[in-house]
Formats: sequence, structure tokens, C-alpha cells
Amino acid sequence: MTCKMNMLPSIQEALAKMPYPTRPEGLYEPIRYVLDMGGKRLRPALMLLAYSLYRDDVDCVMPAAIGLETYHNHTLLHDDLMDRADMRRGFATVHRKWNDNTAILSGDTMLIMAFEKFLEYDGRHSDEIVRLFAHTAREICEGQQYDVNFETRTDVTIEEYIEMIRLKTSVLLACAAKVGALAADAPKADADALYRFAEKLGLAFQVQDDYLDVYGDPRVFGKKNGGDILCGKKTFLLIHALQRADEATRHTLLSTPADPNLTDEEKISTVTVIYNALGIPQLTLEAIDAFYAEAHHNLLQTSLGEAGCKPLWDYACSLLGRNK
Amino acid sequence: MTCKMNMLPSIQEALAKMPYPTRPEGLYEPIRYVLDMGGKRLRPALMLLAYSLYRDDVDCVMPAAIGLETYHNHTLLHDDLMDRADMRRGFATVHRKWNDNTAILSGDTMLIMAFEKFLEYDGRHSDEIVRLFAHTAREICEGQQYDVNFETRTDVTIEEYIEMIRLKTSVLLACAAKVGALAADAPKADADALYRFAEKLGLAFQVQDDYLDVYGDPRVFGKKNGGDILCGKKTFLLIHALQRADEATRHTLLSTPADPNLTDEEKISTVTVIYNALGIPQLTLEAIDAFYAEAHHNLLQTSLGEAGCKPLWDYACSLLGRNK
Repeated sequence: MTCKMNMLPSIQEALAKMPYPTRPEGLYEPIRYVLDMGGKRLRPALMLLAYSLYRDDVDCVMPAAIGLETYHNHTLLHDDLMDRADMRRGFATVHRKWNDNTAILSGDTMLIMAFEKFLEYDGRHSDEIVRLFAHTAREICEGQQYDVNFETRTDVTIEEYIEMIRLKTSVLLACAAKVGALAADAPKADADALYRFAEKLGLAFQVQDDYLDVYGDPRVFGKKNGGDILCGKKTFLLIHALQRADEATRHTLLSTPADPNLTDEEKISTVTVIYNALGIPQLTLEAIDAFYAEAHHNLLQTSLGEAGCKPLWDYACSLLGRNK
Repeated sequence: MTCKMNMLPSIQEALAKMPYPTRPEGLYEPIRYVLDMGGKRLRPALMLLAYSLYRDDVDCVMPAAIGLETYHNHTLLHDDLMDRADMRRGFATVHRKWNDNTAILSGDTMLIMAFEKFLEYDGRHSDEIVRLFAHTAREICEGQQYDVNFETRTDVTIEEYIEMIRLKTSVLLACAAKVGALAADAPKADADALYRFAEKLGLAFQVQDDYLDVYGDPRVFGKKNGGDILCGKKTFLLIHALQRADEATRHTLLSTPADPNLTDEEKISTVTVIYNALGIPQLTLEAIDAFYAEAHHNLLQTSLGEAGCKPLWDYACSLLGRNK
């Protein structure tokens, strides 16, 4: 069971062994750099775990797993460029280490390579798998566009927000889980249930990320608190707070991030005090619990039974830092 | 035969009828804008013409044709961003009309949509076709990277230059012709010969483009002469001139574009006088003729016979502005 639980070593090995063109260096070096940065390899791990619930020969679906990871890193590369982010996982981002044009072109190449890896997979349901991947990739662009739109809006509803994070984050996890099931020739109903499971898991994960930005332990979370507050990001917490607040408090919430008379600490504390007064932390934890429960409910709808899907549920719980 | 010769109306109709998501508008509006700009629709036309040499039912391969055109416009969108170009076909470029991030994200989406169109095609040799497309798309990124590298080099050889334009321009034409043949279930040797035909045609086309920039009639060519000279572009002409020139003339060729004491007209005339003295126009015309002849030679290697491939050869000649 242990080998089923930890897919990371085989993913790392497959990534490292991936045959790679070397020339032109200016194109492929940044790609290798990004793929070598590490990370949890969450999407391929989820895919391989879903597959391994039904079959053991995970090697035959490794190309699709590498395709998912290559695609995910393509989105990080282009998102970092669009956000003008300097650092990623402790390394300089590609547009900082090289330049903007390198980030555009190497990023485009990674998107093509992701498709090439999916097309390399030639097993069960390969046509449906690559079409699902393509559809998912386009949904993620839509999510990114909504995220950009939200920056300049103050009337984002919670439904719009959930739809945005579903597109931007959840559908790739859902795609990963479903690809694993399809490749394993799992029953169609199982593949769909695994899709919904990972979709809800992604929502729980993203809302928890919003929560931890304000209330997490920075030593565990690995980031300073309040980053989202300082950049005025439309998070689950802020959108709910704007909905619950009176007019004066709404104004404070919206104007605090850019207030030149406040220090960063004062900004964070101002907004956090409002969140607390409005019951936002409690409401957010309840929403995370609800998504988490929905994820579990969907997982139990598969033909696997509770014991059969335990490795996947354990993995989901470990991602959310929860006891099982 | 006339209907075979002009594929443009059916391509335009298919592009216009293509079902399209509308939301988020900020993502899809720029894509529609780019695809509506027009152009010769060279790649889908070449593909459909190749197909129609073997079969009449071109509608069934239209998705792949639209995929080619969508992909080509993706490269224009991202190339214009990288080159900071303001105009394309008389319209403001996407990063000028919207912004850089829109150009990145809508461009990414077009690349995904191109794959989706190829995956929509479900006919003969569909697996080989989408793999050929993916491989070709990556080659084009490599060509673009070499083009970027050449900007800061003064020792580019003519072999390197030919390989760069082959990757950047020719392989997509070659892919288009071969996709048409594969989809029509043409003999394998025909598909490969059509690939080489369009590859050589692309080289003739690109070198002719270099020639016309200096020696073309601006009223016919549609652009002012000397654009490549003014930006010091490593063209077929400049690379040959640098190879043939003595040290002092090399220096003049390399320093003229950035010389602050010369007007644009003086720069163009300085370089053109050198080209003429070194016999560059004659040498370039011979190279175009040679690629043109190689293209014809490869076309005649198909099973079609000279009469059978006449529509495609006529189209090639019309593209190069030649009498047949």
C-alpha cells in the first residue's frame, strides 16, 4: 500500500528521464529549469493514484502524467509573467532570469510539449483523454481571464468567485483524477465521480488557501500572513465580508490596501478585525468543510467502496493537512 | 476545376460559422478579432488543395484546416507581442488594442483551440495528423528562437539561416500539404513528397520575401522597400553579402542600420549598392529558382502525374507571383 501512496519518486524519475531536445538552448533550458524546480507534483500524483485504485501498471500512463505536470508548469510560467512575479518556489521566475520573450516562447513550447505527452499515451480511451485535457486547458484560460477581470471589480459575487476558482484550479485536478480512471478503464460512473471528487477537493483546497493567508501559521504555511489583504485580492473572505458589511465598513475594506497612511501590519490588522467581527473565519471554515464533505461523498459514489478508495482519500486529507 | 482552385470562400465560411464561446469576452473577443483580420488563408488552402487532388469531400477535413489557420494566427499574435509590432494587416495588434496580458492569454487559448480543432477531426489517419501538427508547432517555436538568436549574432551561416526559415515558415506549409494527403488516404510516398514540395515552396517564398524587400516594386509588394535593411535583419541577402565582402565592407554592412549620420534613404542606398556590387540579387534569384525547381521536382514524384497535380502547382505559382 505504501508504494501506492507515494507516487512522487516515480514521477520525478519520469520527469528526469524525459527525452529532451537540447537545441536551441535558449528555448529548452528555461523549460528544464521550470520542471526542475520541484513542487508536490500534485496533478500527476492524483492521476496515478486514481489509476492505481484500479490497476497496478502505472508506467503505461506516465506520459499523460508528465503531460499534466508540463501543462501545469506552463500555466505557472505564463501566470508569473502576467503577474510580474519575481520568485517561484524560491527561484527567480523565467522572465526575471531570462526575459519576457523567453517566458512567452518557452511557455508556448511547454504547452505544445504537454499535448505531445498526451498524444504519446496510446492506451485505453486515449482519444477521450486528450480531448478532456484540451477542453480543461481552455477552461483554465477562462478562469485566469475571470481572475484578471475581478481585479478591477468590487461587485464580484461568491458564485462568480467559486466558478472562477473552479475553472482556474479545480478542473485540472478533476481532469487528472478522471484521466487516471479512464486510462484504467474504470466504469464511466466512477470516472465521473472521481472528476467531481477532485473538483470539490480543489475548491476546498483553494478556499483553505484563502483562509490560511490570513489565519494560517506562517511556520507551517510557509508564507507571511496577509499577502492577499495587502494586494486587495478578491478572496473568499473579502467577497463575503463585502457582502456582510455596512457601507462604511465596505469602504474601509476596499480602501485599506492602498491607504498610504497605514503600515502593512496596520492594513492586515484593520482587515482582520473586520473579518473577525463579521464572522468570516467561521463561515470560511464551514465552507471548506462542506467542500471537503462533498469531495468525500463523491468519492464514495465510486464502485470501489470505502476501503478501495482509501489511498486516494488519505492523499486528499494529507494535501489539506487534515486528520483522516 | 475552378472550385478546386479557390478554397478561400469555403475556408472563410467555416471560420465564420465556427462555434465559439463568448464568455469571458476579454478572452474570446481578441481571438475573433485576429481571425477576422483576413489574409490569404494560405495554410488551410494548401491543405484542402492537397486533399482535393485525391478526394472531393473537403468538408470532412475542414476542422483540421481551421486548426491550421487558428494555430498560424496564434503565432502571429505572440510574435507581434515579442516584436512589439503595432500593426498587422492594417489593424492594431492585440497587445496594442488591448494589452500584453491579453495577448499572452488569448494567444495561449488560440493554441489550445488549434489542438481542439485537430482533435475534432476524426477521419483517416487522425492520430498521425495531430501528432504531425504537434511536432510541427514545436519546430516553429525552435525556428522563432533561432530567429531571436540571430539578431545578436554577426556570424550566422547561410545553412543556419535556411534551417531557421525552414523551421519558422516552411514546416507549417509542409505539414498542411501532408495533412491534406494523409486525410485523403493518399499513398505514403505521396504524403512525404507533398511535404517536401511545400517545404521547398516555403523556402522559395521566404527568400523571395527577402529579395522583394530590397528589389520589389512597392506598388505590387505592398510594403516600402528596405525595411529589413533599416532594422539590420539577417536576411538571405545580408548573410551572403557578409560572406562575400572584405573586412571594410562587412563593417559598413553591419554599422549602416544604426548610423545616426545617415537618413533612411541613404542607409538603404548604401547597403543596396554593396549588394549590387557583390552580385547578391543575381545569386538570390538563382536560389529562389533552385528552391522553386526542387518544389516542382518533389511534386512530380507523387503518383498524380503532371496533370493530376496541376491545381496545386498553379496555386504555388500564383503565390510566388510566377507564370506557370
